[in-house]
Amino acid sequence: MLEQLTLYLHKLSPYSQKAELALIEANAPYKGYQIDVFNKPEWFVSKVNPVGKVPTVAYGGPNVAPDDPSPSSTKIAESNVILEFLADLYPDSGLLPKDPVSRAKVRSFVDANTKHFEDPLYGFIAGRGSYEDVLNGVEFIQGLLGEGGDFAVGDHYTIADACISPHLARLMVITEADSGKFAVGMGSKLGEELKAPKFAKFMKYADRVLERPSLKQTFDKEGVTTFFKTFYART
Amino acid sequence: MLEQLTLYLHKLSPYSQKAELALIEANAPYKGYQIDVFNKPEWFVSKVNPVGKVPTVAYGGPNVAPDDPSPSSTKIAESNVILEFLADLYPDSGLLPKDPVSRAKVRSFVDANTKHFEDPLYGFIAGRGSYEDVLNGVEFIQGLLGEGGDFAVGDHYTIADACISPHLARLMVITEADSGKFAVGMGSKLGEELKAPKFAKFMKYADRVLERPSLKQTFDKEGVTTFFKTFYART
Repeated sequence: MLEQLTLYLHKLSPYSQKAELALIEANAPYKGYQIDVFNKPEWFVSKVNPVGKVPTVAYGGPNVAPDDPSPSSTKIAESNVILEFLADLYPDSGLLPKDPVSRAKVRSFVDANTKHFEDPLYGFIAGRGSYEDVLNGVEFIQGLLGEGGDFAVGDHYTIADACISPHLARLMVITEADSGKFAVGMGSKLGEELKAPKFAKFMKYADRVLERPSLKQTFDKEGVTTFFKTFYART
Repeated sequence: MLEQLTLYLHKLSPYSQKAELALIEANAPYKGYQIDVFNKPEWFVSKVNPVGKVPTVAYGGPNVAPDDPSPSSTKIAESNVILEFLADLYPDSGLLPKDPVSRAKVRSFVDANTKHFEDPLYGFIAGRGSYEDVLNGVEFIQGLLGEGGDFAVGDHYTIADACISPHLARLMVITEADSGKFAVGMGSKLGEELKAPKFAKFMKYADRVLERPSLKQTFDKEGVTTFFKTFYART
Protein backbone atom coordinates (compact mmCIF):
# COMPACT_ATOMS: atom_id res chain seq x y z
CA MET A 1 0.00 0.00 0.00
CA LEU A 2 1.27 3.45 -0.86
CA GLU A 3 2.07 5.82 1.97
CA GLN A 4 2.26 9.59 2.25
CA LEU A 5 4.82 11.28 0.03
CA THR A 6 6.13 14.78 0.58
CA LEU A 7 8.39 16.43 -1.96
CA TYR A 8 10.61 19.23 -0.67
CA LEU A 9 11.53 21.36 -3.63
CA HIS A 10 12.46 24.76 -4.97
CA LYS A 11 10.38 26.00 -7.86
CA LEU A 12 13.40 27.25 -9.81
CA SER A 13 15.48 24.09 -9.35
CA PRO A 14 15.65 21.85 -12.43
CA TYR A 15 16.46 18.88 -10.17
CA SER A 16 13.31 19.48 -8.14
CA GLN A 17 11.37 19.74 -11.38
CA LYS A 18 12.53 16.28 -12.47
CA ALA A 19 10.85 14.75 -9.43
CA GLU A 20 7.69 16.82 -9.86
CA LEU A 21 7.43 15.80 -13.51
CA ALA A 22 7.68 12.11 -12.63
CA LEU A 23 5.06 12.46 -9.90
CA ILE A 24 2.64 14.25 -12.20
CA GLU A 25 3.22 11.86 -15.11
CA ALA A 26 2.61 8.89 -12.76
CA ASN A 27 -0.55 10.59 -11.53
CA ALA A 28 0.82 10.18 -8.02
CA PRO A 29 -0.62 12.01 -5.01
CA TYR A 30 2.01 14.09 -3.20
CA LYS A 31 2.47 17.14 -1.09
CA GLY A 32 4.90 19.64 -2.57
CA TYR A 33 6.61 22.00 -0.14
CA GLN A 34 8.82 24.89 -1.23
CA ILE A 35 12.14 25.30 0.56
CA ASP A 36 13.91 28.64 0.43
CA VAL A 37 17.32 27.21 -0.49
CA PHE A 38 19.02 30.55 0.07
CA ASN A 39 17.70 30.71 3.61
CA LYS A 40 16.95 27.15 4.68
CA PRO A 41 14.69 26.54 7.64
CA GLU A 42 16.55 24.91 10.51
CA TRP A 43 14.10 22.00 10.69
CA PHE A 44 14.81 21.10 7.04
CA VAL A 45 18.51 20.56 7.72
CA SER A 46 18.05 18.88 11.10
CA LYS A 47 15.07 16.68 10.23
CA VAL A 48 14.94 16.15 6.47
CA ASN A 49 18.28 16.51 4.72
CA PRO A 50 21.50 17.31 6.62
CA VAL A 51 23.08 18.42 3.33
CA GLY A 52 20.16 20.80 2.90
CA LYS A 53 19.56 19.97 -0.75
CA VAL A 54 16.35 19.81 -2.73
CA PRO A 55 14.71 17.75 -4.02
CA THR A 56 14.24 15.49 -1.03
CA VAL A 57 11.34 13.10 -0.59
CA ALA A 58 9.90 12.08 2.79
CA TYR A 59 8.01 8.83 2.31
CA GLY A 60 5.83 7.00 4.82
CA GLY A 61 5.32 7.67 8.51
CA PRO A 62 2.38 9.65 9.86
CA ASN A 63 0.59 12.17 7.71
CA VAL A 64 2.20 15.25 9.25
CA ALA A 65 2.55 18.83 8.07
CA PRO A 66 5.59 19.17 5.75
CA ASP A 67 7.21 21.73 8.06
CA ASP A 68 6.92 19.33 10.99
CA PRO A 69 8.51 16.21 9.48
CA SER A 70 8.35 12.89 11.27
CA PRO A 71 11.51 10.93 12.16
CA SER A 72 9.71 7.78 11.03
CA SER A 73 9.45 8.73 7.36
CA THR A 74 12.24 7.64 4.99
CA LYS A 75 14.14 10.56 3.50
CA ILE A 76 15.36 10.13 -0.07
CA ALA A 77 17.60 12.68 -1.77
CA GLU A 78 19.31 13.03 -5.17
CA SER A 79 16.99 13.58 -8.12
CA ASN A 80 17.95 10.45 -10.08
CA VAL A 81 17.55 8.24 -7.01
CA ILE A 82 14.12 9.80 -6.49
CA LEU A 83 13.17 9.10 -10.13
CA GLU A 84 14.04 5.41 -9.70
CA PHE A 85 12.11 5.34 -6.43
CA LEU A 86 9.00 6.75 -8.09
CA ALA A 87 9.30 4.24 -10.93
CA ASP A 88 9.45 1.47 -8.30
CA LEU A 89 6.48 2.87 -6.36
CA TYR A 90 4.44 3.10 -9.57
CA PRO A 91 5.50 0.09 -11.65
CA ASP A 92 2.51 0.45 -13.96
CA SER A 93 3.12 4.13 -14.66
CA GLY A 94 5.56 3.34 -17.45
CA LEU A 95 8.16 5.63 -15.82
CA LEU A 96 10.42 2.63 -16.41
CA PRO A 97 9.60 -0.07 -18.97
CA LYS A 98 9.22 -3.65 -17.75
CA ASP A 99 11.93 -5.50 -19.63
CA PRO A 100 15.57 -5.30 -18.53
CA VAL A 101 17.01 -4.23 -21.89
CA SER A 102 14.59 -1.32 -22.26
CA ARG A 103 15.20 -0.30 -18.66
CA ALA A 104 18.94 -0.27 -19.37
CA LYS A 105 18.35 2.03 -22.35
CA VAL A 106 16.42 4.46 -20.17
CA ARG A 107 19.20 4.39 -17.56
CA SER A 108 21.87 4.93 -20.20
CA PHE A 109 19.95 8.03 -21.22
CA VAL A 110 19.71 9.25 -17.62
CA ASP A 111 23.44 8.68 -17.18
CA ALA A 112 24.23 10.49 -20.45
CA ASN A 113 22.00 13.39 -19.42
CA THR A 114 24.05 13.86 -16.26
CA LYS A 115 27.46 13.55 -17.88
CA HIS A 116 26.93 15.01 -21.34
CA PHE A 117 24.13 17.53 -20.93
CA GLU A 118 23.67 18.82 -17.37
CA ASP A 119 27.35 19.36 -16.70
CA PRO A 120 28.25 21.26 -19.91
CA LEU A 121 24.99 23.26 -19.85
CA TYR A 122 25.38 24.62 -16.33
CA GLY A 123 29.11 25.03 -16.85
CA PHE A 124 28.27 27.28 -19.81
CA ILE A 125 25.62 29.21 -17.88
CA ALA A 126 28.03 29.74 -14.98
CA GLY A 127 30.71 31.03 -17.35
CA ARG A 128 32.98 28.00 -16.95
CA GLY A 129 32.48 26.37 -20.36
CA SER A 130 31.88 27.09 -24.02
CA TYR A 131 28.76 26.81 -26.14
CA GLU A 132 30.64 24.20 -28.19
CA ASP A 133 30.64 21.97 -25.11
CA VAL A 134 26.87 22.31 -24.97
CA LEU A 135 26.56 21.46 -28.68
CA ASN A 136 28.74 18.36 -28.20
CA GLY A 137 26.39 17.27 -25.43
CA VAL A 138 23.36 17.93 -27.62
CA GLU A 139 24.88 15.77 -30.34
CA PHE A 140 25.53 12.94 -27.89
CA ILE A 141 21.98 13.07 -26.51
CA GLN A 142 20.53 13.26 -30.02
CA GLY A 143 22.31 10.00 -30.84
CA LEU A 144 20.36 8.27 -28.08
CA LEU A 145 16.92 9.61 -29.01
CA GLY A 146 14.44 7.07 -30.33
CA GLU A 147 13.08 7.22 -33.84
CA GLY A 148 9.52 8.32 -33.04
CA GLY A 149 10.52 11.67 -31.61
CA ASP A 150 7.85 11.97 -28.95
CA PHE A 151 9.81 10.38 -26.16
CA ALA A 152 13.47 10.04 -25.23
CA VAL A 153 13.41 6.23 -25.23
CA GLY A 154 10.69 3.97 -26.61
CA ASP A 155 7.06 4.96 -27.01
CA HIS A 156 6.18 6.13 -23.51
CA TYR A 157 7.09 8.91 -21.10
CA THR A 158 9.86 7.61 -18.83
CA ILE A 159 12.31 8.94 -16.27
CA ALA A 160 14.56 9.66 -19.27
CA ASP A 161 12.12 12.39 -20.35
CA ALA A 162 11.68 13.61 -16.77
CA CYS A 163 15.43 13.95 -16.23
CA ILE A 164 16.19 16.01 -19.32
CA SER A 165 13.05 18.13 -19.73
CA PRO A 166 13.87 20.74 -17.06
CA HIS A 167 17.25 21.32 -18.70
CA LEU A 168 15.74 21.64 -22.17
CA ALA A 169 13.43 24.33 -20.82
CA ARG A 170 16.40 26.20 -19.38
CA LEU A 171 18.42 25.77 -22.57
CA MET A 172 15.64 27.62 -24.41
CA VAL A 173 15.64 30.40 -21.80
CA ILE A 174 19.35 31.13 -22.13
CA THR A 175 19.26 31.08 -25.93
CA GLU A 176 16.25 33.42 -26.02
CA ALA A 177 17.30 35.80 -23.25
CA ASP A 178 21.09 35.47 -23.70
CA SER A 179 21.22 35.39 -19.90
CA GLY A 180 24.14 33.74 -18.14
CA LYS A 181 27.72 34.41 -17.13
CA PHE A 182 28.96 33.63 -20.64
CA ALA A 183 30.15 36.45 -22.91
CA VAL A 184 27.41 38.69 -24.33
CA GLY A 185 25.85 37.10 -27.41
CA MET A 186 27.05 33.56 -26.76
CA GLY A 187 23.61 32.41 -25.60
CA SER A 188 22.05 33.76 -28.79
CA LYS A 189 24.87 32.21 -30.79
CA LEU A 190 24.12 28.83 -29.20
CA GLY A 191 20.47 29.29 -30.17
CA GLU A 192 21.43 30.01 -33.77
CA GLU A 193 23.71 26.96 -33.95
CA LEU A 194 20.90 24.76 -32.67
CA LYS A 195 18.80 25.73 -35.70
CA ALA A 196 21.21 23.86 -38.00
CA PRO A 197 19.71 20.83 -39.78
CA LYS A 198 22.11 18.50 -37.95
CA PHE A 199 20.29 19.22 -34.68
CA ALA A 200 16.76 18.93 -36.12
CA LYS A 201 15.95 15.68 -34.34
CA PHE A 202 17.03 17.05 -30.97
CA MET A 203 15.11 20.29 -31.42
CA LYS A 204 11.97 18.48 -32.52
CA TYR A 205 12.15 16.37 -29.39
CA ALA A 206 12.77 19.48 -27.25
CA ASP A 207 9.78 21.25 -28.80
CA ARG A 208 7.46 18.35 -27.97
CA VAL A 209 8.76 18.09 -24.43
CA LEU A 210 8.15 21.78 -23.84
CA GLU A 211 4.54 21.45 -24.97
CA ARG A 212 3.77 18.77 -22.42
CA PRO A 213 1.25 19.85 -19.73
CA SER A 214 3.41 18.47 -16.89
CA LEU A 215 6.29 20.64 -18.06
CA LYS A 216 4.19 23.79 -18.41
CA GLN A 217 2.63 23.22 -15.01
CA THR A 218 6.03 22.98 -13.29
CA PHE A 219 8.08 25.54 -15.20
CA ASP A 220 8.11 29.17 -14.09
CA LYS A 221 9.72 30.59 -17.22
CA GLU A 222 9.63 34.17 -16.05
CA GLY A 223 11.08 33.23 -12.65
CA VAL A 224 13.89 31.20 -14.21
CA THR A 225 14.70 33.99 -16.67
CA THR A 226 14.91 36.55 -13.88
CA PHE A 227 16.95 34.17 -11.74
CA PHE A 228 19.49 33.56 -14.51
CA LYS A 229 19.76 37.31 -15.14
CA THR A 230 20.46 38.10 -11.51
CA PHE A 231 22.23 35.03 -10.10
CA TYR A 232 24.44 34.63 -13.16
CA ALA A 233 24.80 38.37 -13.81
CA ARG A 234 27.88 39.42 -15.76
CA THR A 235 29.85 41.49 -13.29
CA MET B 1 14.50 -16.42 -20.94
CA LEU B 2 18.05 -15.27 -20.36
CA GLU B 3 20.28 -14.75 -23.36
CA GLN B 4 24.03 -14.77 -23.86
CA LEU B 5 25.97 -12.16 -21.91
CA THR B 6 29.49 -11.04 -22.73
CA LEU B 7 31.36 -8.71 -20.42
CA TYR B 8 34.18 -6.70 -22.02
CA LEU B 9 36.51 -5.71 -19.24
CA HIS B 10 40.02 -4.87 -18.15
CA LYS B 11 41.34 -6.83 -15.21
CA LEU B 12 42.84 -3.75 -13.53
CA SER B 13 39.74 -1.56 -13.94
CA PRO B 14 37.70 -1.11 -10.75
CA TYR B 15 34.65 -0.30 -12.88
CA SER B 16 34.99 -3.59 -14.74
CA GLN B 17 35.36 -5.36 -11.43
CA LYS B 18 32.02 -3.95 -10.20
CA ALA B 19 30.25 -5.75 -13.05
CA GLU B 20 32.20 -8.97 -12.54
CA LEU B 21 31.39 -8.98 -8.83
CA ALA B 22 27.68 -8.61 -9.50
CA LEU B 23 27.74 -11.40 -12.10
CA ILE B 24 29.56 -13.76 -9.75
CA GLU B 25 27.38 -12.91 -6.76
CA ALA B 26 24.26 -13.50 -8.88
CA ASN B 27 25.73 -16.80 -10.02
CA ALA B 28 25.17 -15.63 -13.59
CA PRO B 29 26.76 -17.32 -16.59
CA TYR B 30 28.84 -14.91 -18.68
CA LYS B 31 31.78 -14.70 -20.99
CA GLY B 32 34.45 -12.29 -19.80
CA TYR B 33 36.74 -10.85 -22.46
CA GLN B 34 39.77 -8.73 -21.66
CA ILE B 35 40.21 -5.53 -23.67
CA ASP B 36 43.62 -3.89 -23.82
CA VAL B 37 42.39 -0.39 -23.04
CA PHE B 38 45.76 1.14 -23.91
CA ASN B 39 45.66 -0.41 -27.36
CA LYS B 40 42.03 -1.06 -28.18
CA PRO B 41 41.14 -3.46 -30.96
CA GLU B 42 39.43 -1.68 -33.83
CA TRP B 43 36.40 -4.00 -33.69
CA PHE B 44 35.74 -3.04 -30.07
CA VAL B 45 35.34 0.64 -30.93
CA SER B 46 33.44 0.06 -34.17
CA LYS B 47 31.17 -2.75 -33.00
CA VAL B 48 30.86 -2.65 -29.21
CA ASN B 49 31.45 0.77 -27.70
CA PRO B 50 32.27 3.85 -29.82
CA VAL B 51 33.65 5.56 -26.71
CA GLY B 52 35.93 2.54 -26.24
CA LYS B 53 35.30 2.21 -22.52
CA VAL B 54 35.12 -0.88 -20.33
CA PRO B 55 33.07 -2.35 -18.82
CA THR B 56 30.61 -2.88 -21.66
CA VAL B 57 28.09 -5.69 -21.79
CA ALA B 58 26.80 -7.28 -25.00
CA TYR B 59 23.52 -8.99 -24.23
CA GLY B 60 21.45 -11.23 -26.50
CA GLY B 61 21.87 -11.98 -30.17
CA PRO B 62 23.63 -15.07 -31.46
CA ASN B 63 26.21 -16.85 -29.34
CA VAL B 64 29.25 -15.48 -31.15
CA ALA B 65 32.91 -15.23 -30.21
CA PRO B 66 33.52 -12.07 -28.11
CA ASP B 67 36.00 -10.71 -30.65
CA ASP B 68 33.43 -11.07 -33.42
CA PRO B 69 30.47 -9.26 -31.82
CA SER B 70 27.04 -9.35 -33.41
CA PRO B 71 25.18 -6.15 -34.36
CA SER B 72 22.02 -7.74 -32.94
CA SER B 73 23.17 -7.83 -29.33
CA THR B 74 22.35 -4.88 -27.08
CA LYS B 75 25.44 -3.03 -25.89
CA ILE B 76 25.27 -1.58 -22.38
CA ALA B 77 28.01 0.64 -20.96
CA GLU B 78 28.64 2.52 -17.70
CA SER B 79 29.26 0.36 -14.64
CA ASN B 80 26.31 1.57 -12.57
CA VAL B 81 23.90 1.09 -15.49
CA ILE B 82 25.27 -2.44 -15.88
CA LEU B 83 24.75 -3.13 -12.16
CA GLU B 84 21.09 -2.13 -12.43
CA PHE B 85 20.73 -4.25 -15.57
CA LEU B 86 22.12 -7.31 -13.80
CA ALA B 87 19.79 -6.72 -10.84
CA ASP B 88 16.88 -6.60 -13.31
CA LEU B 89 18.04 -9.75 -15.14
CA TYR B 90 18.37 -11.61 -11.83
CA PRO B 91 15.55 -10.27 -9.67
CA ASP B 92 15.90 -13.15 -7.19
CA SER B 93 19.65 -12.66 -6.74
CA GLY B 94 19.12 -10.03 -4.06
CA LEU B 95 21.41 -7.64 -5.98
CA LEU B 96 18.56 -5.22 -5.36
CA PRO B 97 15.99 -5.77 -2.60
CA LYS B 98 12.33 -6.04 -3.58
CA ASP B 99 10.72 -3.16 -1.76
CA PRO B 100 10.99 0.41 -3.10
CA VAL B 101 12.33 1.99 0.10
CA SER B 102 15.16 -0.55 0.46
CA ARG B 103 15.98 -0.18 -3.23
CA ALA B 104 16.20 3.59 -2.75
CA LYS B 105 18.66 3.06 0.13
CA VAL B 106 20.87 0.90 -2.08
CA ARG B 107 20.76 3.52 -4.84
CA SER B 108 21.56 6.32 -2.40
CA PHE B 109 24.64 4.31 -1.44
CA VAL B 110 25.63 3.82 -5.10
CA ASP B 111 25.19 7.55 -5.72
CA ALA B 112 27.23 8.42 -2.61
CA ASN B 113 29.96 6.00 -3.66
CA THR B 114 30.32 7.86 -6.96
CA LYS B 115 30.26 11.36 -5.53
CA HIS B 116 31.90 10.96 -2.14
CA PHE B 117 34.27 8.03 -2.51
CA GLU B 118 35.34 7.31 -6.12
CA ASP B 119 35.97 10.93 -7.04
CA PRO B 120 38.10 11.90 -4.00
CA LEU B 121 39.96 8.57 -3.98
CA TYR B 122 41.10 8.69 -7.60
CA GLY B 123 41.71 12.42 -7.34
CA PHE B 124 44.10 11.65 -4.47
CA ILE B 125 45.79 8.80 -6.34
CA ALA B 126 46.24 11.02 -9.39
CA GLY B 127 47.79 13.78 -7.28
CA ARG B 128 44.85 16.16 -7.62
CA GLY B 129 43.41 15.95 -4.10
CA SER B 130 44.33 15.50 -0.47
CA TYR B 131 44.03 12.52 1.85
CA GLU B 132 41.65 14.61 3.94
CA ASP B 133 39.23 14.57 0.98
CA VAL B 134 39.40 10.77 1.05
CA LEU B 135 38.76 10.72 4.81
CA ASN B 136 35.74 13.00 4.40
CA GLY B 137 34.38 10.55 1.84
CA VAL B 138 35.03 7.62 4.16
CA GLU B 139 33.12 9.39 6.91
CA PHE B 140 30.17 10.03 4.58
CA ILE B 141 30.08 6.41 3.42
CA GLN B 142 30.41 5.16 6.99
CA GLY B 143 27.29 7.12 7.90
CA LEU B 144 25.32 5.11 5.35
CA LEU B 145 26.54 1.65 6.41
CA GLY B 146 23.99 -0.61 8.02
CA GLU B 147 24.31 -1.79 11.59
CA GLY B 148 25.20 -5.44 10.95
CA GLY B 149 28.49 -4.68 9.27
CA ASP B 150 28.53 -7.52 6.75
CA PHE B 151 26.86 -5.62 3.94
CA ALA B 152 26.62 -2.01 2.83
CA VAL B 153 22.81 -1.88 3.06
CA GLY B 154 20.53 -4.42 4.72
CA ASP B 155 21.39 -8.07 5.29
CA HIS B 156 22.30 -9.20 1.79
CA TYR B 157 24.97 -8.56 -0.84
CA THR B 158 23.64 -5.86 -3.20
CA ILE B 159 24.92 -3.63 -5.98
CA ALA B 160 25.92 -1.25 -3.16
CA ASP B 161 28.59 -3.75 -2.10
CA ALA B 162 29.57 -4.45 -5.70
CA CYS B 163 30.04 -0.75 -6.48
CA ILE B 164 32.31 0.09 -3.56
CA SER B 165 34.33 -3.12 -3.09
CA PRO B 166 36.79 -2.57 -5.96
CA HIS B 167 37.62 0.87 -4.57
CA LEU B 168 38.09 -0.45 -1.03
CA ALA B 169 40.59 -2.96 -2.39
CA ARG B 170 42.50 -0.16 -4.11
CA LEU B 171 42.35 2.04 -1.03
CA MET B 172 44.19 -0.69 0.86
CA VAL B 173 46.80 -0.98 -1.90
CA ILE B 174 47.70 2.71 -1.84
CA THR B 175 47.88 2.84 1.96
CA GLU B 176 50.10 -0.29 2.10
CA ALA B 177 52.35 0.52 -0.85
CA ASP B 178 52.21 4.33 -0.62
CA SER B 179 51.89 4.25 -4.42
CA GLY B 180 50.27 7.13 -6.25
CA LYS B 181 51.02 10.61 -7.52
CA PHE B 182 50.51 12.11 -4.05
CA ALA B 183 53.53 13.29 -2.02
CA VAL B 184 55.72 10.52 -0.57
CA GLY B 185 54.26 9.23 2.69
CA MET B 186 50.75 10.56 2.17
CA GLY B 187 49.37 7.09 1.30
CA SER B 188 50.84 5.65 4.49
CA LYS B 189 49.54 8.67 6.40
CA LEU B 190 46.04 7.98 5.07
CA GLY B 191 46.40 4.36 6.22
CA GLU B 192 47.39 5.50 9.72
CA GLU B 193 44.46 7.92 9.93
CA LEU B 194 42.05 5.15 8.95
CA LYS B 195 43.11 3.17 12.03
CA ALA B 196 41.49 5.81 14.30
CA PRO B 197 38.52 4.53 16.33
CA LYS B 198 36.20 6.94 14.50
CA PHE B 199 36.63 4.89 11.31
CA ALA B 200 36.28 1.48 12.98
CA LYS B 201 32.89 0.71 11.44
CA PHE B 202 34.09 1.55 7.93
CA MET B 203 37.28 -0.50 8.31
CA LYS B 204 35.40 -3.49 9.71
CA TYR B 205 33.12 -3.39 6.68
CA ALA B 206 36.11 -3.03 4.33
CA ASP B 207 37.86 -6.00 5.96
CA ARG B 208 34.82 -8.23 5.45
CA VAL B 209 34.39 -7.13 1.86
CA LEU B 210 38.01 -7.95 1.09
CA GLU B 211 37.60 -11.48 2.45
CA ARG B 212 34.73 -12.25 0.11
CA PRO B 213 35.54 -14.97 -2.48
CA SER B 214 34.07 -12.92 -5.35
CA LEU B 215 36.44 -10.08 -4.50
CA LYS B 216 39.50 -12.30 -4.21
CA GLN B 217 38.66 -14.01 -7.46
CA THR B 218 38.46 -10.72 -9.38
CA PHE B 219 41.23 -8.67 -7.75
CA ASP B 220 44.77 -8.88 -9.06
CA LYS B 221 46.45 -7.16 -6.12
CA GLU B 222 49.95 -7.49 -7.49
CA GLY B 223 48.86 -6.18 -10.89
CA VAL B 224 47.06 -3.19 -9.40
CA THR B 225 50.02 -2.37 -7.15
CA THR B 226 52.42 -2.45 -10.10
CA PHE B 227 50.00 -0.42 -12.21
CA PHE B 228 49.67 2.30 -9.57
CA LYS B 229 53.45 2.44 -9.19
CA THR B 230 54.05 2.88 -12.90
CA PHE B 231 50.97 4.72 -14.22
CA TYR B 232 50.88 7.13 -11.29
CA ALA B 233 54.65 7.33 -10.87
CA ARG B 234 55.92 10.48 -9.19
CA THR B 235 57.91 12.22 -11.90
